[in-house]
Amino acid sequence: MHEIRTGFGDVLKRQLELAERNYELLADHGVRAVNVMGAIGSGKTTLILRLAERLRARGLRVGAIAGDVAGDDDFKKFQAAGLPSALINTEDQCHLDPHRVRHALQEFPLAEVDVLFVENVGNLVCPADFPLGCEQEVVVISVTEGDDMVRKHPKIFAQTDVVTINKLDLAEVVGVNPQRLVEDYRRVNPHGRVVLTDAKSGRGVEELLSALGLAE
Amino acid sequence: MHEIRTGFGDVLKRQLELAERNYELLADHGVRAVNVMGAIGSGKTTLILRLAERLRARGLRVGAIAGDVAGDDDFKKFQAAGLPSALINTEDQCHLDPHRVRHALQEFPLAEVDVLFVENVGNLVCPADFPLGCEQEVVVISVTEGDDMVRKHPKIFAQTDVVTINKLDLAEVVGVNPQRLVEDYRRVNPHGRVVLTDAKSGRGVEELLSALGLAE
Repeated sequence: MHEIRTGFGDVLKRQLELAERNYELLADHGVRAVNVMGAIGSGKTTLILRLAERLRARGLRVGAIAGDVAGDDDFKKFQAAGLPSALINTEDQCHLDPHRVRHALQEFPLAEVDVLFVENVGNLVCPADFPLGCEQEVVVISVTEGDDMVRKHPKIFAQTDVVTINKLDLAEVVGVNPQRLVEDYRRVNPHGRVVLTDAKSGRGVEELLSALGLAE
Repeated sequence: MHEIRTGFGDVLKRQLELAERNYELLADHGVRAVNVMGAIGSGKTTLILRLAERLRARGLRVGAIAGDVAGDDDFKKFQAAGLPSALINTEDQCHLDPHRVRHALQEFPLAEVDVLFVENVGNLVCPADFPLGCEQEVVVISVTEGDDMVRKHPKIFAQTDVVTINKLDLAEVVGVNPQRLVEDYRRVNPHGRVVLTDAKSGRGVEELLSALGLAE
């Protein structure tokens, strides 16, 4: 393990450089990108589809990149919605990294989109360590995960300035108080914005768009 | 850590050796250990508590190790239930590894337990790569995660012979057909056992105990 620890700082530095190059590539094409993180099943895909509907209703062109360990379920959903989209299967890797995202961006029709959602692998730990070069980041929590999500993963919440607490309509059924999550988040990130959503019904999606600076 | 491909084979070999030492330590004390894996919020803790109740009703002594990136919510639940228990906070690591588990075992009152549940970090990717030395492994899925969980993580399901599909009572509310998960699992692991549970109500817990070889 020792030699790996020695080299890990270099790996992170390299990731940051790659992320910066992605940021520039996106900026060159006038694309605003959002890194959408959150655990498996938190509702990231549905939320992206809802956000995309509202952006397209405003005349904006929206694309999506689906990041998953395996499978193409989310990618197919983006395609079915008519979004220019790409799939990144990470195989053994539990997070997207800027190198893989760069390859996807290089083949993506960036000239045809204004907003690009990058759906990260479902995981609340490692995506926090790998910036992708997106101008915005959001973490999606589902109330079905329990009220201890923030306490269990303080790092990703401390460094992410937009959080959405999703599947709000199930809060009562699962006996979770969303305010507990809100309070825990404010404790680790007093300046962050937190939005309550229910992606299926569309509740809160407009506020989330606003929190991401995409509403205007 | 997974980026560092050079040397990773050696790391895995070392992990396997450490896992074997844990296995021997547990066997020396006559402790049967179960590595409980699954995504965040899949219901691992509640399921362990239900299994523990039934084992204790049979006169068996049960302990638990709570693995989390941060926080002590699950550990406190084990303590409140009167189980000898330990907490492993992995900080930046998205999975338990046999080295950390070994340290926990060395301080654990192994002579006072017959069955030990080791609750892994909530993540469906990396725990698959790190054997802990437990004689049994189980992956917990919650229906609230969607019906694509197995397709997105074939590896962990292919190598784990007991799977439980939990929060069954919410299947209708979230519009997920558990049979889809069962079929996907059978496709990647034809010899595995799959049990439908609802940990909160106790439904299916007896079958799970049986699937884990702990019912007799």
